[in-house]
Amino acid sequence: FLARAIEKCDTLGQENVFVEDALGRITATSLLAKNSVPHYHAAAMDGIAVKAADTFTASETEPVILKINKNAYFVDTGSPLPEGCDAVIMIEDVFPLSSEDYEIRAAATPWQHVRSIGEDIVASEMILPPFHRIRPVDLGPLVAGGWEYIPVLKKPRVGILPTGSELVPLGSRPEKGQIIESNSYTFAGLLRSWGGEPRRYNIVKDEFDLIKKEVEQAVKENDLVLIGAGSSAGRKDHTVHVLQEMGEVLVHGVAIRPGKPAILAIVQGKPVVGVPGYPVSAYFILDLFVKPLLYRWQKQALPERDKCRAIFTRRVVSSLKEEEFLRVKLGKVGKKIIATPLSRGAGVSMSLVRADGLARIPLNCEGLEAGQEAEVELWRDMAEIENTVVCIGSHDVSLDLLGSFFKRKYPSYNLASTHVGSMGGIMALKRGECHLAGIHLLDEKTGEYNISFLKRYLPGIEIVLVNLLYRQLGLFVAPGNPKKIYGIEDLTRDEILFVNRQRGAGTRLFLDYQLKEKKLDPCSIKGYQREEYNHLAVAAAVASGSCDAGLGIKAAAVALGVDFVPLAQERYDLAIPLIYYKTEQVQGLLETISEHRFRKAVEELGGYDLSHSGEVIWQSSKI
Amino acid sequence: FLARAIEKCDTLGQENVFVEDALGRITATSLLAKNSVPHYHAAAMDGIAVKAADTFTASETEPVILKINKNAYFVDTGSPLPEGCDAVIMIEDVFPLSSEDYEIRAAATPWQHVRSIGEDIVASEMILPPFHRIRPVDLGPLVAGGWEYIPVLKKPRVGILPTGSELVPLGSRPEKGQIIESNSYTFAGLLRSWGGEPRRYNIVKDEFDLIKKEVEQAVKENDLVLIGAGSSAGRKDHTVHVLQEMGEVLVHGVAIRPGKPAILAIVQGKPVVGVPGYPVSAYFILDLFVKPLLYRWQKQALPERDKCRAIFTRRVVSSLKEEEFLRVKLGKVGKKIIATPLSRGAGVSMSLVRADGLARIPLNCEGLEAGQEAEVELWRDMAEIENTVVCIGSHDVSLDLLGSFFKRKYPSYNLASTHVGSMGGIMALKRGECHLAGIHLLDEKTGEYNISFLKRYLPGIEIVLVNLLYRQLGLFVAPGNPKKIYGIEDLTRDEILFVNRQRGAGTRLFLDYQLKEKKLDPCSIKGYQREEYNHLAVAAAVASGSCDAGLGIKAAAVALGVDFVPLAQERYDLAIPLIYYKTEQVQGLLETISEHRFRKAVEELGGYDLSHSGEVIWQSSKI
Repeated sequence: FLARAIEKCDTLGQENVFVEDALGRITATSLLAKNSVPHYHAAAMDGIAVKAADTFTASETEPVILKINKNAYFVDTGSPLPEGCDAVIMIEDVFPLSSEDYEIRAAATPWQHVRSIGEDIVASEMILPPFHRIRPVDLGPLVAGGWEYIPVLKKPRVGILPTGSELVPLGSRPEKGQIIESNSYTFAGLLRSWGGEPRRYNIVKDEFDLIKKEVEQAVKENDLVLIGAGSSAGRKDHTVHVLQEMGEVLVHGVAIRPGKPAILAIVQGKPVVGVPGYPVSAYFILDLFVKPLLYRWQKQALPERDKCRAIFTRRVVSSLKEEEFLRVKLGKVGKKIIATPLSRGAGVSMSLVRADGLARIPLNCEGLEAGQEAEVELWRDMAEIENTVVCIGSHDVSLDLLGSFFKRKYPSYNLASTHVGSMGGIMALKRGECHLAGIHLLDEKTGEYNISFLKRYLPGIEIVLVNLLYRQLGLFVAPGNPKKIYGIEDLTRDEILFVNRQRGAGTRLFLDYQLKEKKLDPCSIKGYQREEYNHLAVAAAVASGSCDAGLGIKAAAVALGVDFVPLAQERYDLAIPLIYYKTEQVQGLLETISEHRFRKAVEELGGYDLSHSGEVIWQSSKI
Repeated sequence: FLARAIEKCDTLGQENVFVEDALGRITATSLLAKNSVPHYHAAAMDGIAVKAADTFTASETEPVILKINKNAYFVDTGSPLPEGCDAVIMIEDVFPLSSEDYEIRAAATPWQHVRSIGEDIVASEMILPPFHRIRPVDLGPLVAGGWEYIPVLKKPRVGILPTGSELVPLGSRPEKGQIIESNSYTFAGLLRSWGGEPRRYNIVKDEFDLIKKEVEQAVKENDLVLIGAGSSAGRKDHTVHVLQEMGEVLVHGVAIRPGKPAILAIVQGKPVVGVPGYPVSAYFILDLFVKPLLYRWQKQALPERDKCRAIFTRRVVSSLKEEEFLRVKLGKVGKKIIATPLSRGAGVSMSLVRADGLARIPLNCEGLEAGQEAEVELWRDMAEIENTVVCIGSHDVSLDLLGSFFKRKYPSYNLASTHVGSMGGIMALKRGECHLAGIHLLDEKTGEYNISFLKRYLPGIEIVLVNLLYRQLGLFVAPGNPKKIYGIEDLTRDEILFVNRQRGAGTRLFLDYQLKEKKLDPCSIKGYQREEYNHLAVAAAVASGSCDAGLGIKAAAVALGVDFVPLAQERYDLAIPLIYYKTEQVQGLLETISEHRFRKAVEELGGYDLSHSGEVIWQSSKI
């Protein structure tokens, strides 16, 4: 496809742009200097210009006397040398005898303190080669070398055609079954960053004739056309049929994941790409097929991303039949670089936002084991990853806020939170995969939080336990509590549908503890098996009406507008190995926690008590 | 200065921009999702939507029959789940009995093939943190999460005020003593690439009151002001006095080279930087003082450039009193990274264009020895440097063209030519510092070119000698040849001023050979000591009238419009060690040489014969 597409559009044509607008553009030819810089011999010092030959006999004992405007001329730095002069004597080395006569006590060598013609740029010399991306430092020499309008390659024009009857444009309020068309904005951004000139067309309904008409128009007006499917590229997908009728479909379906249902075609000599509707699939299709095309057209080498070896925190099972592109969060913990796989769903656009890197699991590979090392392409600078505090553990809504305030206080630092539950956090600490873990684990025997778990599971690691906050735990119920749910007992009622948290979550442990206390059977709760990974997702499930109750923190209930039935207050702490506790990054994070502004912002979320935030609760003694 | 300046302008203020224009801007706050994505439970497959509970008993032997629009509903991928449904069965697993009755043979689990509310984004979840530079992949999720106008930090406004009575604006034809103002274009490009909003003001003459008035205006309209001196910042430099009168001058003079005469001041609470006139000095002052300020204001960490260790090809003597910023060309030859220092002049803006990297020679260091290793900050990707063919040796005008055609044919490859003369090239080969050397060395005894030198100086290295071209060598004289110079003998005449090439240049060896043959004394030639480093510079010297004659190739005479007195035709070859001869890059270069287009372009320069280009002239036998 690439070869065919490149052949079809080998010359982009050129245009002249004013030098100030040429930044980032690609030169269309070599740019030769139209004049020398400087274009005259110029004094490089303040002083007098002389003919060196007139000074050859000068010495301390036998000075030479020069006459101003006869054989010596005052010059400033940058002044042209008067006719016949070939050297400048610094003003400090000139001794006035009268207003006309000046004594010099050392011979001048020819061309001393002179910027001669072409010292910087010689006329006809190449300032920039062809197909060079113009940088800031190129602009001054271009101007100095006589260029005002710069011949640059035209930008490849790319039409973006969103299709899908369920799509509505940005600015509308989508009904159920409608979604706001958003992919074209990411496409436009990507194309722009690759040097292209994107043009977003209006949304086209899923009708053969409408699509065909728009594709015809777009092909006419662009060098390349992307046809975006809606996220519902199912039964009614006409794109491939349109393209078959209008031109030649070269590829339909690509063995990568996400990204499979792509179409590569040539219509009227121009490449057309049918892009899948799911945002992550779409991203990889653009990255794999459109980016190289744009770079080739602009005669630019595809930039290679830096790579590193990273240890995977979780097992990943991958299909043998496809190459999988796995987005990961990265962090440097001690000397290890740790990779945590993000959501693998093709529809989870946030996985692209959150990713620090990309791992490729090749065809015919079953996946990766937890603890296995693999190559990861870096999407952020290593320095940024090294400045990231990795927090793995229980989810709390305040962690996002903490990250914000942390970044605000220390622009070079980041907080990366991964939510795998409290026990998951403790296991990550044990494996040395995080700097700290957010935990809220109630010991059924003592009624104490967290400490006994740290003692039991992390006997060899010196830990400092710092309180983050106390928070209210309770039941999420529909607004107005129509099903009259007031406690754990109500969850076992026949008509109540529950949504649970995943195994290892502190909130789930709390539920199980309560069930045991009350001698209730988990199997008697409908939906006990349905798991969500954080408080917001549980609250969202209740808000949407897909279940009647869930267990979580008050802040999530407030955020999603559901009612909250308080059951208990629990302590949420940060467990930090001593070696990381002492680092600047973690100390910076703890300072952020102690700030009044942060506490106030969290308290406003509802259900939080931060009066002990930042206090050291407990510290394990040295073994 | 930075601390003072940052304090003065800690908050840039924010503005709302349309999401498409937000690419590359910095978020002013955290951006939370205004709605969930998807905002309804959606089918993730084409099929029928069901209530999972209705299917629990289904099996191969005991299928369940569902009635369409009663307890089963056709859905496409993306369709909302009908009220009461909680699972989707793929169309492939549904067996029609009639138009109404459909049989299923396996139980559906709740939420199978369903994209539930918030699967991608949960309402109120943070899409982007504050002070995040918006990337293409962020745009889609912002739109999907309900954002149309994005609150971003205002760009820091920076006024650029060029001063200097000798400056004329781009578009004018400069007289002798005038120069086109070019620094402000580089400044604007740099500021833009650092996230600033530059504004170039008109050129101000070197008069105290005019400068003062303009500075007042610029300080009012911007967050930061740069006052650019002309390249002639000598006697008449008023900037520091203006700033002393208007505000507080914190620093005047910085111990770096190039860059020394900088001024850092605060005027009406805003930072003002007096930037030196020489373009390279100006660059480093901006890089050291303005860039960190802009990044701090935008709450961004200063990006760190990659570094490498490189071996220096030449000795560099540096001042003890200043930190020196040395621009270098880099190339990878074998396993070594080789750094060749570029021109160190503060006025040579092309050294910034040509540089691949930067070496810092600290205060109190005397410099670097040839062969010494030092740290170099990379200005290009390592991949780009690895794809660079390093050619060190004699200068020829066709090398620029060769580089252009090479890049055109192989966009990912580069040719880096350094001109140190033919003998310099052979020495670079000996030290393993280049892939090939351009040489034209006449053996006085045999009249043969190049081969005897390779045998003598590179006995241990297998070399392939490839012809690049034959070229006419002769004398450059003023148009019309007013001084009637027809041969080497004329150079010794009293009224003739000559300009020579540097020691080790093949052209100089040719001259010395001719002088010896003709039994002439080099000391009898006026200007024999004045050295230029390439043919164009010699021709430029003759063109400017600063000398009467020089020796060089015809193409340079044609380019600079001087007359040419032919003396001989010489062979210019490329000496390539066998190990590099076999590499893809060098083979690509040789293919470029063989191309008709390249040959034609070179022949048009004048004085060239390319009928043997690309032929292997000689190959040393294995030792």
